[in-house]
Parts: sequence; C-alpha cells; structure tokens
Amino acid sequence: MPAEMLQANQVHEMRPPFRINKDTAQIIRALRKQGCLTSRDFSLITGWSKAKTFQVIDHLFNNGILVQAGEAMSIGGRKPRLFCLNQNLGYLVGIDIGATSIDLVISDLVGRILQRISEPADVRGKPELFLNRCIELIHQLAASQGCQPDEILAIGIGVPGPVDFARGILVAPPLMPEWENFSIREFLHRAFPKALVVVDNDVNIMALGEKWAGNGVNLDHFIYVKIGTGIGAGIISNGLIHRGSTGSAGDIGHICVDKNGPICKCGNVGCLEAMAAGPAIAEKGLQAARSGASPFLKQLMEVNGGIIHPEDVNAACREGDQAALEIIRQSGQMIGDVLASLVNFFNPSHIFIGGGIANFGNHLLVAIRSVVLRRSLPLATTHLSINYSHIAADAGVIGAIALALEHLFVVQDHPHRLLPI
Amino acid sequence: MPAEMLQANQVHEMRPPFRINKDTAQIIRALRKQGCLTSRDFSLITGWSKAKTFQVIDHLFNNGILVQAGEAMSIGGRKPRLFCLNQNLGYLVGIDIGATSIDLVISDLVGRILQRISEPADVRGKPELFLNRCIELIHQLAASQGCQPDEILAIGIGVPGPVDFARGILVAPPLMPEWENFSIREFLHRAFPKALVVVDNDVNIMALGEKWAGNGVNLDHFIYVKIGTGIGAGIISNGLIHRGSTGSAGDIGHICVDKNGPICKCGNVGCLEAMAAGPAIAEKGLQAARSGASPFLKQLMEVNGGIIHPEDVNAACREGDQAALEIIRQSGQMIGDVLASLVNFFNPSHIFIGGGIANFGNHLLVAIRSVVLRRSLPLATTHLSINYSHIAADAGVIGAIALALEHLFVVQDHPHRLLPI
Repeated sequence: MPAEMLQANQVHEMRPPFRINKDTAQIIRALRKQGCLTSRDFSLITGWSKAKTFQVIDHLFNNGILVQAGEAMSIGGRKPRLFCLNQNLGYLVGIDIGATSIDLVISDLVGRILQRISEPADVRGKPELFLNRCIELIHQLAASQGCQPDEILAIGIGVPGPVDFARGILVAPPLMPEWENFSIREFLHRAFPKALVVVDNDVNIMALGEKWAGNGVNLDHFIYVKIGTGIGAGIISNGLIHRGSTGSAGDIGHICVDKNGPICKCGNVGCLEAMAAGPAIAEKGLQAARSGASPFLKQLMEVNGGIIHPEDVNAACREGDQAALEIIRQSGQMIGDVLASLVNFFNPSHIFIGGGIANFGNHLLVAIRSVVLRRSLPLATTHLSINYSHIAADAGVIGAIALALEHLFVVQDHPHRLLPI
Repeated sequence: MPAEMLQANQVHEMRPPFRINKDTAQIIRALRKQGCLTSRDFSLITGWSKAKTFQVIDHLFNNGILVQAGEAMSIGGRKPRLFCLNQNLGYLVGIDIGATSIDLVISDLVGRILQRISEPADVRGKPELFLNRCIELIHQLAASQGCQPDEILAIGIGVPGPVDFARGILVAPPLMPEWENFSIREFLHRAFPKALVVVDNDVNIMALGEKWAGNGVNLDHFIYVKIGTGIGAGIISNGLIHRGSTGSAGDIGHICVDKNGPICKCGNVGCLEAMAAGPAIAEKGLQAARSGASPFLKQLMEVNGGIIHPEDVNAACREGDQAALEIIRQSGQMIGDVLASLVNFFNPSHIFIGGGIANFGNHLLVAIRSVVLRRSLPLATTHLSINYSHIAADAGVIGAIALALEHLFVVQDHPHRLLPI
C-alpha cells in the first residue's frame, strides 16, 4: 500500500499538541533521526519484543501517524515493510523575527524546509501591523506548497527580546516596547485556529537550530552567542535548552565589562552590549573616520553621507586598515572577557557565534579565542571549540521549526504532566 | 506477611548498580518521595491500569525490592497493603572530603541518615593514607548499625577539586596534587567489593544535597555557592546537575574581578578566589590588625600569636569593628559582581550560599545581594532569592548519599544506554 493512498483518519480531526505515550514518543524520535525504519529496526532501537513493537506500530499506522514507505531489502523470508512519519498530516511554519528583518519557512513534519521568504521589517511599531504582514507571508508560503491554512499544525517563532516562555509573551522588550504583554500566540491563533503557536527568544531558537541541524547535533553542553545590534546567548545543558527560572537566561549583553565604561540604555555602566556590539563598532568607526585615524573609513563616510555601518569597519579591516582592526579586536576582547567567565562557570564543549557579526572573519574570532584561552582554566578550555556557526544565517528559522516540532507531540508521562518530545 | 520476615532473594546476589526498567524506576521514585504507598496510590501516580500496577508490584515484591509495611485504612472492602522499599537490601555511605576535615554518614536505602562521624583531616598527603583512614571510619559506621561490609551497596564521595566524573578521578587538583589520576573508585572497591563508588566535586554534591533535602527540593534552576578556602559553584539546570563537558562547571573562583588585582596561584590576575575567599579575608584582617585600623583584630592577633583567621574578622565585625566590616563588605561586593554576571547568564530562581563562610551573618549577604540587584537585569532578579543554605553543614554528606542513591538504580531505556534515577 503506497503512502499516498493512505488517509490520516483520526489525527485530522484532532488539534495539536498531539498527546502520546512514551512508547509512541520513542518511535517518533527514532523516525525523526532515521527517516524510514522497519519493525525489526524499531525492536533493535527500543529493545521491545516483536509482539510489543507490532502492537505499537499497528496503533500508529491505524491512526495515520505512520505510513508505509515501501519495502526494505529482505534478510531472508518476506521483504520487511518500511515505515515513516506521515508527511500528509500537515505542515510546520518557522518564523525568525529580527530587529530589522523577518525570515519565514514552511517545512514538512520531519522538519525538511520546503520554501523560504525573507524581507526587511521593523519591529518597533504596533505588533498587529507586523503580525498581519506575517500572516500574509504564511499564506503565501502555504499556497506555494498547495497547503490549506488548517493543514498548518504548528508555528514556531523567535523574537528579539525576553520571553515569558510559559505564557508566550514578551516581557519588557527594549527593542519592541509596543509588544509588551501582547499575546502573539492568541493573535496567530485567530488566523490559524488549528495551529499550535510556540514563542521563544531569538537566541534560544538559534541554539535549538544548531542542536537540531548544525554542529551541535550530538553535543550536550554548548553556548550559542548572537552578536548583532545586541548580544545574547542560547544555552544547551544536558542536551536540553536552558531557559532559566523566568525565561531570561542568556541575557549576557548587560554583563559589566568596564566599571568606568559608558552608561547603557539599561541604566548600568560598561555593559558588554553598549561597548562591543554592532552600534559600538559603528560609532568607533565613525570616530576613526572623523579623526582621520582610518583613511579607508573616512573615504567610506564621505561616500555614505556621513554614516558608518559595522560592516564598513569590517570591510576596512579586511583592507588592512589598522584603526578598523583595532576596533574589531577591542570588541573581540570584551566579548572574550565575558565568555571566559562563562566558560569557567558553564564548561561548554563548544561556543558557536552567529548574528549580524557572524561574517566578520578571523580577527574577531582570534581576539575572542585568545582572551578565553588566557582567562579560563585549562580543564575547561583543553577541548573547547570557539567558532562561527556554519548555519548562522539559517539557525533561527531551523530552530523555529525545531521548536514547533518539539511541541507538536507531547508525552503524557503522568496524569498531570506533559513533556515536549 | 510482616516486612522483617521477608528475604531479599535475588538482589543480594547481584552487584550494584541494579538495572531496572522505566516502570520500576517510576515506582522507586514514588516510594523515595512518599515512603509507603498502596497499589491504588501507585495507579494514581503512574496512570497505569490496576492489572499493570499489580504486575509491576508483584515483580518487585518477588525480587525483594519492595516489602509490605503494614496495611492502610480501608476505603471500603479489604484493607489495602502498604508497600515500601526493602531497607534490608543494604546501606549507603556518604563522604564529604574537605581541605581540612572529613565527614562521613551511613544511611538506609531511602537516604535516611543513621549515623555520622566527622574528624580533622589533611588532603595534601598521599591518597592511600587518607583513604585507608576513610575505610576504617566506614567500618566503624557499619559496625554501629550491625551492618556487614558487603551490605554497603554504594558510596558517594565529594572531593575539593575538579573531577572527571565519568572516570571518577581528580584532574589537576590544586589543593591535593598527590591525588592526580589516582582512582578513588578502585581503591575503595578493593575494600568494599560489592559497593558502587561514585566520585564528584564537593560543590556539586552540596547542590545535590540542597536539591535532595534542602530548600532546593522543588526548584529547577539554582546555583549553590561554596565560599571557604576557595570559591566554587554547583549548578542545577532543568532539575538536573550540570557538570559541563569535562566536569569542571562551576569553577567560578578564577573568574577575574579586578584586572589590576594580585596574581593568583592559577597564574592569572585578580581572581575572585584570591581576592574574596577565606584566606584573603584573613590576610586583610592581619593588615588591619598590624596597622591598628582594627583595634579589635590587633588585640586578637596578640592573643593568637600573630595569626588572624577569617572567623576572627567576622567576630570583629559582629562587635561593630568598622575595618572588619569593610573587609567583609568588599568580599561580598566582589562575589556579588561575579554572581551578577551569572544571574544574567543563567537566570536561577535561587542562589544558596554555603561553606566555611556560611555562618558569616548578614553583612556579607547584604553586600552580595545589593550588587546583584544593582547589576543584573530586572527580569532575572524580580523573583531571585539569595540566602545562606539552611542545611549548609550537612549539604555535602546529604548530597553524597543522594549521589550514591541516584546511581544505585539505573534505568535501561535503550539497549546501550543507562540513566541514573
């Protein structure tokens, strides 16, 4: 019976999240990793008896969650049937909201990205306006796949601000004050009544993306650092995302690096973000252009009408401009100072760097690394790797899909307790 | 059939760790929390059918892991039987090794402490000498309970240095260089061939103790800070101990607090430990005594033959001595500086403070709190509690028992994977 002839019967009448038991969760986890499996594979992976394996597979097959995807090679006797997750169950949407841009993807149920849209956007206005545009774009993505709106089962969203994860709302977000206490979840629910909506911080979803499809796949303890307009971190501990007690974990942009530093918009002095992020790099570049310390930036400033972007400083650095190199080195050293403390505290095996600064090349990376190696303890740094994230540009949307997927099925391991898988 | 008439049949012939399945793990977890339960209680807690519950209980009963502990009140019909863990299965030993002292306890299988021994000790010598004394003390503890050495099923140990947890050995321990690469596990194994031996860092076991029996019982994210001769942290993330990728997580004593500070024994400058821990407090106290800035400490120094202990500075502070107060305040501020960064990064709900400084009263605590509140972000501090650990003196040995207990039973959730429960 080929896959396309099957109809998912019960599932289409249910609304996500789908409640499953631990046995089903094991099967779904195995399928996500491996794609297609025979019942013998399931037995090997789970350690179950043949009888129990058949029983669980039958149940999932009858409910339309599994479909047959063909036959495997015979190892004697009849050819064994291959099972995979029923992709016709529906679709997922992942959204990565940045300060000045928005990226959306649509994926199938195993997280394969089918289509992508990116456009400039401004989060500083009313959330309704922003999210209505989001809804239009989701409809475009769905149409491109011939997918009906009620086939979208889950939407994962990353937003650039502190999120109360349990309630799915932003708390005192400095970049987007109009969004405070606004329920993104309810707003999108009205447009997609069947979809489960999960909201998280932008750096958390980047860490999830790295864990899901980047170099973090097999890692238990790592930190994802986003450097752009601000600086933040996503944390993986014991293989799980660590959001902290109120969901604000990873807010490293306001760690003090210089007690005599400038006043930050948070009210404190010498915050890492105020001294080392994109705007600080641009500001120092502007000074170097005006003072003539950097002839390259002076020229750029004149061409740009008096403006210097962080990318300009990087371009100058690539051209061998000493003043620009020094600016980038200083940023790297300050970021390294903070990371050195965090390495001592957290002992990650890897630090991945992403965000707008992720294409800044080796000078930044070398400065960060040398401070961390000098300032952290040998036991913590011997096997430590600090690198740019290879999936930096996609980490956000991949993570948003992973977030949606994790919450689409929940394990009922106790009458009162649900766990995402 | 009363409990004392039962014989644990199979278990006594097996060697720990005991491999169990997920169902058994659920039953054991419930019994650890509740003490005694009826089969109806098990059904409610696990969500299992009556039939399955009876089956699992029967299996554990026949294997001597559960025993009957009497009868519960009837709620109609026959009085239901009450089950508990079979305490006659054996005993556990917890050992907390400090720089200058050793504490040992023996407990039953639900972690109730039955007897305790503490004595001064010196870890700087050969490990064999130290551990032979340990073995004598374990025999004393066992004898006090009429327990044979082969009834000791597991020994949990905390040591004051970085531990490679998987291998159970110390790695470059500054306080106890002779212990480098020495296998504590193998040495104790020879004396107690049946016992499982689990070795961890001293602050990790304190965090475990707080999670097991202190104010951390229901908390998912907290940091336990030990301040004494050194400064270290134990970390709980998502309810689990976070040891980091090489087991060195929590090593906060060498985070830099002053780039112009003194050189630390680790080779860097301005480390927290070198500037704020016990020896730094004593050293500053001695200076205040010599200069006459503290008349109280001057008097103490003369009585003590030229020596000042950290406790003396605290005593002076309690008497209203301004110089001593300032010394303790400075330590608190530096510890607060580091914790402020960690609060932004980790967003714990609680910070518990223990170690030799845990009885230093309010001045230290107030200094720490005020810096953290000023320097961390509001979302991270609104619900943050910073307090001395109420079980500070016992956190280590309780945690060592918890460590032993967690590893005594392991869940086989996959043919190749074992998880402590």
